[in-house]
Amino acid sequence: MNRISSPNNSKIKYLNKLYRSRARRKEGCFVLEGKRLIEAAAGGADFEEIFVTPAFFRQKENKNLLDILQKKAVLNVVDEDIFNQSADTVNPQGIMAVVKETEFDKSTFLKKVKRILLLDRIQDPGNMGTIIRTAAASGFDGIIAAKGSVDIYNQKVLRATMGAIFSLPIWQKVDRKRIIDILKSKSDEFEIIAADVNAEEYYFQHSYKDKVIVLIGNEANGLDKNYLELASAEVKIPLAADIESLNAAVAAAILCYEIAKKDYII
Amino acid sequence: MNRISSPNNSKIKYLNKLYRSRARRKEGCFVLEGKRLIEAAAGGADFEEIFVTPAFFRQKENKNLLDILQKKAVLNVVDEDIFNQSADTVNPQGIMAVVKETEFDKSTFLKKVKRILLLDRIQDPGNMGTIIRTAAASGFDGIIAAKGSVDIYNQKVLRATMGAIFSLPIWQKVDRKRIIDILKSKSDEFEIIAADVNAEEYYFQHSYKDKVIVLIGNEANGLDKNYLELASAEVKIPLAADIESLNAAVAAAILCYEIAKKDYII
Repeated sequence: MNRISSPNNSKIKYLNKLYRSRARRKEGCFVLEGKRLIEAAAGGADFEEIFVTPAFFRQKENKNLLDILQKKAVLNVVDEDIFNQSADTVNPQGIMAVVKETEFDKSTFLKKVKRILLLDRIQDPGNMGTIIRTAAASGFDGIIAAKGSVDIYNQKVLRATMGAIFSLPIWQKVDRKRIIDILKSKSDEFEIIAADVNAEEYYFQHSYKDKVIVLIGNEANGLDKNYLELASAEVKIPLAADIESLNAAVAAAILCYEIAKKDYII
Repeated sequence: MNRISSPNNSKIKYLNKLYRSRARRKEGCFVLEGKRLIEAAAGGADFEEIFVTPAFFRQKENKNLLDILQKKAVLNVVDEDIFNQSADTVNPQGIMAVVKETEFDKSTFLKKVKRILLLDRIQDPGNMGTIIRTAAASGFDGIIAAKGSVDIYNQKVLRATMGAIFSLPIWQKVDRKRIIDILKSKSDEFEIIAADVNAEEYYFQHSYKDKVIVLIGNEANGLDKNYLELASAEVKIPLAADIESLNAAVAAAILCYEIAKKDYII
């Protein structure tokens, strides 16, 4: 156990730095705030530092979690004002942690997964987090996020995932050329599905293959044309006359759950 | 056309006041920001004031919209710095309007609608806006929002609706007693549907009646027990083992679209 009472402490400076995307990329680490996210991470994630307020440290109901975490990394008890200055949330709940980015083997990623969501420049952190949560809930087992999508280790994304970020591998910041290569080289094995208002089939009329890549486009501009051209199935989600489009996380949810459905029908 | 160059102008003061929920309730008016929302409103809404920047006023591509709006209300051209100070958005796009809250006859609401979403204390403005957008898109024709839900005329809600707020009647701030009365008195006519992880039937196995009320609960605490008791059908949305729940807007979307589906299957 380590006591921190100065805002100039090197660990606090390190923590603060990790709120910037570039520093996260350099260090390969990110910040988790709040008990719920840290509990979700406790099973699998690789912890570097744990920061708690004196009040959190004293509370009996936190003892179990702290016992588990102390076996994984150094526990730092930080003065409340310093702790709150670092935290992104208004109510940081007295616990934060620095966690290593989840590693996975990119060379085997496409061999191990069956249902993939491919996200093309999703901008809104709430959408990104909700999509990750829904993909995991519906049994999708991998996400590819194209370069230009919001960083998945952004605090707002992490909060919206409700911890689901640890439930499936997410390969992010993948460049366009690589994505096109993947779509081309995997088109025999995977069905590549795009939602398009002009498609002939409704999404609930289509028979989906076991292995799918579902394409979800940018909130304002939709899918990159180069990706859309490589889709092997286009389906439409019906829209009432005066509505132009659905929210990206809603469209993703409708498609993921329609595809997942067959696991539950005997 | 009216020129405004002072932040103390009474119309600017009135506009600023309407960013607070209590003032909106008192005046029965709310603020719309941005071209997209105002275009969506132009067909049906009752305009009180229109505010544009000199740059917006000069641009040729805005002429059509301004011609339509000027027939409905006074056009105020406001100095850019004053305009930007009032606006909630970082990029207010040079146009705002004060619009009257949409009126509808509450006594006939339940007679005219067929598919209703009943929202129990939805807190997040993004969720509320997305739910309204999805309900309208899937052909639901009414929303009841229980007291304790975020105000639908909040700027973040309005932005997330993408204009769908004008597509269906929304009866908000309805108190608990009234909701229980509605659920009890309408249980013969409407099927009252709740999502519950412990339900026996999956949501896609159930045969929905033509007239439905779908209950969607608070993000953190779920549905009020008194409402849940009055449900006539409980359905479950499958969740992978390590996921506790879905985002409220996602759960609403999955149910709305499942129910809407039968309109498209012949």
